[in-house]
Amino acid sequence: MARLGFVGLGTMGGRIAARLLDAGHEVYGYNRTPGRAAWLEERGLRRCGSPREAAERSEFVLSMVSNSAALEAVTEGEDGIHRGLAPDRVHVDMSTVSPELSRRLAGLARERGGAMLDAPVSGSVVTLEEGRLSIMVGGEREVFARVEPILRDIGPVVTHVGGNGQAVLMKIATNLSLAVQMLAFSEGVLLAEKGGIDRATAVEVLLNSVIASPMVRYRGPFVLSMPDEAWFDVDMMQKDLQLALEEGRHLDVPMPTTAVTNELLTAARGMGMAKRDFATVFHALARMAGVED
Amino acid sequence: MARLGFVGLGTMGGRIAARLLDAGHEVYGYNRTPGRAAWLEERGLRRCGSPREAAERSEFVLSMVSNSAALEAVTEGEDGIHRGLAPDRVHVDMSTVSPELSRRLAGLARERGGAMLDAPVSGSVVTLEEGRLSIMVGGEREVFARVEPILRDIGPVVTHVGGNGQAVLMKIATNLSLAVQMLAFSEGVLLAEKGGIDRATAVEVLLNSVIASPMVRYRGPFVLSMPDEAWFDVDMMQKDLQLALEEGRHLDVPMPTTAVTNELLTAARGMGMAKRDFATVFHALARMAGVED
Amino acid sequence: MARLGFVGLGTMGGRIAARLLDAGHEVYGYNRTPGRAAWLEERGLRRCGSPREAAERSEFVLSMVSNSAALEAVTEGEDGIHRGLAPDRVHVDMSTVSPELSRRLAGLARERGGAMLDAPVSGSVVTLEEGRLSIMVGGEREVFARVEPILRDIGPVVTHVGGNGQAVLMKIATNLSLAVQMLAFSEGVLLAEKGGIDRATAVEVLLNSVIASPMVRYRGPFVLSMPDEAWFDVDMMQKDLQLALEEGRHLDVPMPTTAVTNELLTAARGMGMAKRDFATVFHALARMAGVED
Amino acid sequence: MARLGFVGLGTMGGRIAARLLDAGHEVYGYNRTPGRAAWLEERGLRRCGSPREAAERSEFVLSMVSNSAALEAVTEGEDGIHRGLAPDRVHVDMSTVSPELSRRLAGLARERGGAMLDAPVSGSVVTLEEGRLSIMVGGEREVFARVEPILRDIGPVVTHVGGNGQAVLMKIATNLSLAVQMLAFSEGVLLAEKGGIDRATAVEVLLNSVIASPMVRYRGPFVLSMPDEAWFDVDMMQKDLQLALEEGRHLDVPMPTTAVTNELLTAARGMGMAKRDFATVFHALARMAGVED
Repeated sequence: MARLGFVGLGTMGGRIAARLLDAGHEVYGYNRTPGRAAWLEERGLRRCGSPREAAERSEFVLSMVSNSAALEAVTEGEDGIHRGLAPDRVHVDMSTVSPELSRRLAGLARERGGAMLDAPVSGSVVTLEEGRLSIMVGGEREVFARVEPILRDIGPVVTHVGGNGQAVLMKIATNLSLAVQMLAFSEGVLLAEKGGIDRATAVEVLLNSVIASPMVRYRGPFVLSMPDEAWFDVDMMQKDLQLALEEGRHLDVPMPTTAVTNELLTAARGMGMAKRDFATVFHALARMAGVED
Repeated sequence: MARLGFVGLGTMGGRIAARLLDAGHEVYGYNRTPGRAAWLEERGLRRCGSPREAAERSEFVLSMVSNSAALEAVTEGEDGIHRGLAPDRVHVDMSTVSPELSRRLAGLARERGGAMLDAPVSGSVVTLEEGRLSIMVGGEREVFARVEPILRDIGPVVTHVGGNGQAVLMKIATNLSLAVQMLAFSEGVLLAEKGGIDRATAVEVLLNSVIASPMVRYRGPFVLSMPDEAWFDVDMMQKDLQLALEEGRHLDVPMPTTAVTNELLTAARGMGMAKRDFATVFHALARMAGVED
Repeated sequence: MARLGFVGLGTMGGRIAARLLDAGHEVYGYNRTPGRAAWLEERGLRRCGSPREAAERSEFVLSMVSNSAALEAVTEGEDGIHRGLAPDRVHVDMSTVSPELSRRLAGLARERGGAMLDAPVSGSVVTLEEGRLSIMVGGEREVFARVEPILRDIGPVVTHVGGNGQAVLMKIATNLSLAVQMLAFSEGVLLAEKGGIDRATAVEVLLNSVIASPMVRYRGPFVLSMPDEAWFDVDMMQKDLQLALEEGRHLDVPMPTTAVTNELLTAARGMGMAKRDFATVFHALARMAGVED
Repeated sequence: MARLGFVGLGTMGGRIAARLLDAGHEVYGYNRTPGRAAWLEERGLRRCGSPREAAERSEFVLSMVSNSAALEAVTEGEDGIHRGLAPDRVHVDMSTVSPELSRRLAGLARERGGAMLDAPVSGSVVTLEEGRLSIMVGGEREVFARVEPILRDIGPVVTHVGGNGQAVLMKIATNLSLAVQMLAFSEGVLLAEKGGIDRATAVEVLLNSVIASPMVRYRGPFVLSMPDEAWFDVDMMQKDLQLALEEGRHLDVPMPTTAVTNELLTAARGMGMAKRDFATVFHALARMAGVED
C-alpha cells in the first residue's frame, strides 16, 4: 500500500479518494473548502493545510480539479504541489485541462526531478461506483508503470495512450461526441414528436437502434424526465467543448459538429439552463421548435 | 404460408425476398432490371412482368425501392401496384421515402379498398443476414396485425410505431444520427491524430468509450481501412439527411447538427467520394485538416 | 409599344404590370384570385380567363408567381401558357424557381416553336417603385435582345447572365447572402447589447462600417423596430435558401453558412414568426440568448 | 500639438504614427524590433528604449499591438507603459484585444491616477491612407474629450461608444460579419460557377447587388485574383473570430454563423493558407467543392 496525496475532494475527486482509502492506501487530502472533506476524514483521510503539504507527505500526489486555472493554482506558487514534490515523486493529475498546460506542468515537474502524468477519467460518478471507470494516461511509460497499480484501484481499465498531455487530448476528443450525439438525438426525438409520434415511443425506438451508445442509453431517457441533479452540467460540458475547439484551432482540425453544438449549449445557457445536465440541450432545441417544455 | 409479391429486388430487397422464400412463402417478384433477380428464380421466385402483376398474384405485396420517385413509379400508373391491388389486399412498402408520399399512397390504396403500411428496416445487409434486422411499421393496427407474422420472417424485431408515414419518419429521425455521430467521431480521431496520437490508438480508445454506439463500433474501424464496397454510400445517406431536413422545415424543427453534417457529405461528394461508404466523411474532413489520405 | 400578357398579379407582379401599363403597353392580365387585379383594370389592364388566354392575346407573356409548383400550374396543362404560345412568341418568367424547372419549361417552349427566358428581379417593391430594380436574364441572346426593351421599362438595369436557368441560379446565389448577412449582423448586435452597449448605438456603428451592404442598411434598423408588413417574410426567404441548398447538393457545393442560417429561420418559424420579415431572425436569436423581446 | 508616445510600430501602427508626425505632433516611439521604425525616425520620430520610456516622455501614449498577450507584455511589468504613466496621463490602446483585458488594464491605470481608453480602428491600411479610417472609443467621456482631437488627426470619424472595453467589443461585433459575409459570398460564387456561370460574371452581378457591402466590394474581386500580400490574413481574422466566440460564450450569445465560419477558416489553415488574406476562405470552399484552384 502507498502513501498518497489527493488534491481536490469535490464530487468526483472525493469519491476517488474514498475508493483509494477502501483499497487500503494512506491518503493525505487537501480541499480548498475543507468542510467538503469531513466525510472522508471519518473514513481515515488525513487532512492537509495545502497542496504542498499533501505532496510532501506522499509518494504519489493525485489531483482532480475543475479547470486549467484551478490546476495552476494548486500546482504552482508557494503552497503548490510542485514545492512539495521531492525528486522522483509523481504528480498524477486527473483533471480535464488543456494539453498545453499539462505538458507545461510536466516540464516543470521534471525540472524538479519529479514527474507528472495526465490521467483523466472517462465516465461519471455512476460509472465509478459501479467499478467500471476507465482511465487514460499520458506521460513516460516507466512513470506510468509505477503508478498503474494505484490507478487500477480506482477503475479497472487503465490505458497508456501516449506522452504528456495526450491523455487529456484523448479525453477531449471523446467528450465532444457526448454533446454532439445528445444534440443529434434531440433533433431526432423532436422530429418524431412534431410528426405525431409520442415522445416516449421515439426515445424507446432510438434506444434500441444502432445509434444507442452507452451515453445515449444513459441520457436519452432524460428528455422524458430530467434528473434533479446534473451528472455533468452545461457549464462543464461547454468547458470540454471549448478545450476541443481550442485544440482544433491550434492543430488545424475543423470541427463543424462540435462548433455548432457548442453554440446550442450557449443557447441553453442563455435560456437559463447552465446548471442543468447537458442533456437539457434537448429543451433548448425544443423551445426553438416551439414545443413548450 | 402466404402468396407474396415483391417489387424491387436490389441488394437489400433481393436478400429479403430470399429470406421469405427460405421461410416457405410463394414469392412473385418484379425488378426493373430483370437480370438481377436470376439468382432468386433459382431459389423459387416467380418472375412477374410488372409491379401490377406482382400485386395481382399475391395476398400481400412488398416493395423496396431506392427513393420517393421510384416508389411512385412502381405504385402509380397503368402497370403499378395499385392497379393490381384487389380489395382487402395490403401494400407493404419497406423503402425510405418521405412520410408525405407514404401517407398519400396509403390514402390512394384505401380508396381502392386496400391498405398500405410503411415498414422501413433499421440495419444493413449484415444485420439482415445475421437475423437481427428490426422493422418499424406505420399504419392501421389491424392491418399491421395481419402482416406482422410475415415481417417476423424477415427480421426478429417488428414494432408498430404509429399511423401511416410515421415509421419512415422514425427511421429518418434515427438515421440522421448515423451521419452526425460519424462526423463527430471523425473530428475526435483527427484531433487526437494531429495531437500526436496514433490513429489506431485513438480509434481503439473511442470504441471502448461511452460514445461507442453500434454504428460507431461498425464504422469506426473504417477510418483505418475503408471497405471495398460501401455498406451505405454518401449518396444514400445524403438522401436520408435530405428527407430529415425537409421534414424539419415542414414541422418547424431546427436541425443544426444534421444540416452541418449534410454539408460535409456534400464536400465528400465534391471531393469525389459519392459512392464510398458514408464513413468517408472522415476523409473529407481529413483533407480539410491538411492530413493526406 | 407591345401587347403583353402578364400572369400573376400579386404584390410584386401587380406593380410590375402597372409599370408596363404606365409605359404605354397593352397588358392582358391573369390572376388566380381575380379580385386582386381590380385596381389594375382601372388603369387599363384587360383581364383574361386563363394563363393560356393571356399568352394567346400577346406577343410576350410574362409571369411572376410564388414558387415552382405555381409556375408549373400556370404553364402546363390545358389552360396553361404553353397552349397559348404561338410560334416565335416568348414566355418571360420573373419568378424565383428552381433552375431545373426553368430549363425544363424552356425546352418545352422550344418544342412548340416558342422560347422562354428566366428573368428574376433583384430588389423589392420599394426598389421597384424607386425605379432602381435590376433584372437578370437567362436564355438565348437573340431572344433576350427582343425582350430587353420591355424589361427596361420595368427596371433600369437589365443583365444577360447566361443560358436558360442561369439567371434564377444567379438570383438564388445572391439571395442566400441576404439571410446570412442578416443573421451575422444579429449576432454582432446581440453581442454588443449583452456587453452593455445600447442596441441603437450598436446598429448605428454597424450601419457605418464596412459590413453595411444595402441589405444591411435597409434591414438593420428593423432590429430596433420591425415593419408592420414584411417586405420579404421568413417563408419566402426560406424558399430561396432551400433552392440554394438543393442546388448546392446537386452541384456539389457545400454551403455551411446557408445551411446554418436556414436552421435559424426554421427556429424563427418554430417560434411563430413565419410571416414576419426575415429580419426577425434577430428575434429568434435574441430569445436563444435570453434577451426578452 | 502634443507629445505622444507610440508603442507598436508595425504595418498599421507605423502608418498611424506617421500620420501623427505629419500632423505636427512630437512622437516618442517604441517597437520590439527597432529596425522596423527606421523609416519613421527619418520623419522625426524619436526612438525609445522601452514602452515605459515612451509613456514617461509623453502626455498621451498610444499602443497598437497584435493581440492580448502582446498588450499585456508592453503594459505591465518593469518596462511597461504603466510604470511610466504619470498621474492624469492617458494610455490609448488601439489594438484588438479582449474587452476583459482592456477593462482590467483600465482599472490598473486608474489605480495609478491615470486613465485608459480602448480605441480600435475600423478599416485597413488602405482606408487609413485614403483618410477614411473610423475609430471607436471606449472609456470615460471626459477622458475621451481630451484625446479626441488627436484621434481626429488619425482618422476623420471618431465615435465614443461606451465605457472601457466597449469599443473593442463593438469592433469584434463588427469584424465577425467580415468573415461570414466573405464565406456566404463564396458559397454564392461557387454555386453560380458550378452551375455554368463564368466566375467573373458571378462576381460582377454580386458586386452590383444589395449584398455588396464595402467589404464585399473590396474583397469580392480577390476570388478572381488574390493579392500578393494579405490585407488581413486568416490568422488575424481568426483571432478576431475567437474573441467574438469567447465573448459570445461569456455573454451567452449563440453565434452560429460565426462559429461555422471559424471552422472554415481553420480548414483554410489546414490547407496551408494561414498567411493569405482571409478572402482565401473561398479557395478552401472551392477545394471542398472539387473545384481546382
